[in-house]
Amino acid sequence: MNYTQALSRVVAGLRAEDLRPDVCEAAKKSLLDWIGVSLGAVNDPGVRILIDIVNEMGGKKQSSILGYGLKTTLLNAALVNGAMSHALDYDDAHSGVRTHPSAPMIPALLSAGEHLKVPGKDLIAALVAGFEVTVRIGYALGKDYYERGWHATPILGRFGAAAGAARLLGLDVEQTAVALGLAATQASGLRDAFGTMSKPFHAGKAAMDGLLSALLAQKGFSGPGDVLGPESGFARVFTDAYDPRRILAEPEGGHLILGTNFKPYAACLLTHPAIDGMITLQRDHDLEPGSISEIDISVAPFNLEVTGNRTPKDGREAKFSMAAATALALIHGRATESVFSDKVVDEPRTRALIDKILTTPVDGFAETEAEVKVKLYDGRSYGMHVTTPKGDPGNPMSFDEIADKTRDLIKRTLSSGDAEKIVETVRGLEGLADTARLVRLCCAGRGRLKTPQVVER
Amino acid sequence: MNYTQALSRVVAGLRAEDLRPDVCEAAKKSLLDWIGVSLGAVNDPGVRILIDIVNEMGGKKQSSILGYGLKTTLLNAALVNGAMSHALDYDDAHSGVRTHPSAPMIPALLSAGEHLKVPGKDLIAALVAGFEVTVRIGYALGKDYYERGWHATPILGRFGAAAGAARLLGLDVEQTAVALGLAATQASGLRDAFGTMSKPFHAGKAAMDGLLSALLAQKGFSGPGDVLGPESGFARVFTDAYDPRRILAEPEGGHLILGTNFKPYAACLLTHPAIDGMITLQRDHDLEPGSISEIDISVAPFNLEVTGNRTPKDGREAKFSMAAATALALIHGRATESVFSDKVVDEPRTRALIDKILTTPVDGFAETEAEVKVKLYDGRSYGMHVTTPKGDPGNPMSFDEIADKTRDLIKRTLSSGDAEKIVETVRGLEGLADTARLVRLCCAGRGRLKTPQVVER
Repeated sequence: MNYTQALSRVVAGLRAEDLRPDVCEAAKKSLLDWIGVSLGAVNDPGVRILIDIVNEMGGKKQSSILGYGLKTTLLNAALVNGAMSHALDYDDAHSGVRTHPSAPMIPALLSAGEHLKVPGKDLIAALVAGFEVTVRIGYALGKDYYERGWHATPILGRFGAAAGAARLLGLDVEQTAVALGLAATQASGLRDAFGTMSKPFHAGKAAMDGLLSALLAQKGFSGPGDVLGPESGFARVFTDAYDPRRILAEPEGGHLILGTNFKPYAACLLTHPAIDGMITLQRDHDLEPGSISEIDISVAPFNLEVTGNRTPKDGREAKFSMAAATALALIHGRATESVFSDKVVDEPRTRALIDKILTTPVDGFAETEAEVKVKLYDGRSYGMHVTTPKGDPGNPMSFDEIADKTRDLIKRTLSSGDAEKIVETVRGLEGLADTARLVRLCCAGRGRLKTPQVVER
Repeated sequence: MNYTQALSRVVAGLRAEDLRPDVCEAAKKSLLDWIGVSLGAVNDPGVRILIDIVNEMGGKKQSSILGYGLKTTLLNAALVNGAMSHALDYDDAHSGVRTHPSAPMIPALLSAGEHLKVPGKDLIAALVAGFEVTVRIGYALGKDYYERGWHATPILGRFGAAAGAARLLGLDVEQTAVALGLAATQASGLRDAFGTMSKPFHAGKAAMDGLLSALLAQKGFSGPGDVLGPESGFARVFTDAYDPRRILAEPEGGHLILGTNFKPYAACLLTHPAIDGMITLQRDHDLEPGSISEIDISVAPFNLEVTGNRTPKDGREAKFSMAAATALALIHGRATESVFSDKVVDEPRTRALIDKILTTPVDGFAETEAEVKVKLYDGRSYGMHVTTPKGDPGNPMSFDEIADKTRDLIKRTLSSGDAEKIVETVRGLEGLADTARLVRLCCAGRGRLKTPQVVER
């Protein structure tokens, strides 16, 4: 049994009944968080274009596009929902492998799950399996391929989507290994695309390609052999530092899904430690922006490399600006999606506060670390050192906190009654008889979401 | 204007009316050859599985799957036809960039061309544009990414398909540049897949992804910027030796499509020089296998590295065996697709002749070079040195020779009358009013091609 088959055996053998309660809970948290960040992005312009494309193609009504309720093919639903779920950049992450695992995976699972009417417990098993595959392959690849310019999320995500879909389709070990091989030979996605519609498109494409891999494997398609083994050309083209032992290493503490980061703040993960410190200081000392003379933020150099922009033009750029994101967090006492509107970023009080923020790179700081100091005109000063910000696996968001985030994100699309039904359905996912029921709840809508009309040529 | 935009300007500005007759002729040769090798592979098992998948998805009847006449969406037709056209590994090539340019490109053009009912002259322009883009980017990337393990055909082919489709859709320079950026961020395909259904799948996927890139760009999607420029992350992840000047170098002698290799022999291109010598000796001296005591074949070491297998199990392996391919060429006086049947490979006279063949690697030989010596039991011996085998751009197949190859490949699928209509339609492509007419001819069939039936779940 080679490496790829060995990992496939983990996938094919996963059953929700065998999982510890905390592992099931982690899967449900990812699913609920995914629903929130997806429905929060229904009106994203890139998503609209993708809907336009799949609408023009038509196809059997197999699976639904969230929010719109438009039914399309398995693969097209995975494409659009995948792009939707990564459009806000607010989805869950695994910082150890610089990847968002859910955005390219869960859309494939919901597409297949809705079409095949699988019960909720199988969705849990597939989700845990997909995470496991995503993160183990990520650890084996290391980080230098990302640094060179590859976008890890769609590369690892194709494997996660293929593995999760293989589990839902009931593929055996050999077929699952073929699905992983097909995922490997479609792996792509450049960091060059950051800041464009292509970044979320990567997640959608990975969902689609991963699901296609599993469907092809089910029908007896053949592909490259042991893509995860030591002789693998897949590993060789991406990195010189491939470590196949990490494919087979049993994770300490159970399943790797327990290492998920959730984002309580709608900004780049590298701003989270500073935002977390800022919100805590604001809450504890009731800080008024006007009373502040200076703010010092110390973080790891890498965090500032990515978020050094001090003059963001709009809300999207503010999410990737340490100074703007922390300023907004202090002014509003939170850093949810609505805080990063173009209008709010442009307010004079925001600009004034940004001007008072100094940022200092400190060698030796971890990416999850921040020291925040606030000085007031009256001479008082407050400081805080954050090492494990909210949302970090060491300081996790609870299911209820994720439910609050989700309610906030979907309130413009769904009624509060529908939102509660979603929260409670996910909370009791083990008892859900049919995934299609959950998907229908996510498509209820308030009638505001018009599907683009196709003009027949 | 950056590098990507500059190449896009070449694409957007191409008009058949401005092309030299030999360039138009080259485009028509590639198209006719493509039709032949595609229809020759209609029954490939991997193609059947892909048809099954697209059939299960359904969709608007926009474009046709060759041979079957099944109409499906633009994108799905590109996927299946692309896989079909590379299944025999008998399609045209550009050895300077180790790529098959037509298999991943022409399916995208025919899909769009049929759906949009474009005239033949636009197809010529798109084909020339797609070749130009494929090969220029290939030269800029160099060869080390291929040697590392990437499959060049789908990586370069996504650009060719995107560029050709952009030209057919009438995209402007800026939109074409976006299409190329989207192609870059989907670029994938591993050499690990060689020998499996995934190799032709790569071509199909590149056709589909390239076409999707053009369709998205048309609707205003955004993607990575100057992916072909000197700062490009695309180039960086694939190679350390990127040379962007080759993107803009005007080719000597007109267009790069003039450098196409066509395969007169249904075997690995690296066996062609030796096959060519063998067929010439056989024809000139009427050689009988039983009268031969020994054959010496000298070629470049790389050629033997790839084709060193002396005990092929079936026809497919014989195509990648120097000894078997040359033995079959001598026995049959030709090396067309039907010569590489599993049955013929297994015949005792084939095995006996293979045993008489010595192969010698010679440093300094070009890949297109072979020295073939035949010794007879009666003491006579004949020799031949080949430097530019038939099909090489320096010793090109004529349109009529490609027509013969095509007739041979499609005779099991189409009547000879239909075959002649195809040949004459491509010969007069400038005058074709509607691409859909040509596609219909390629779907005529003899009623033998049954589309797999979908069982509704």
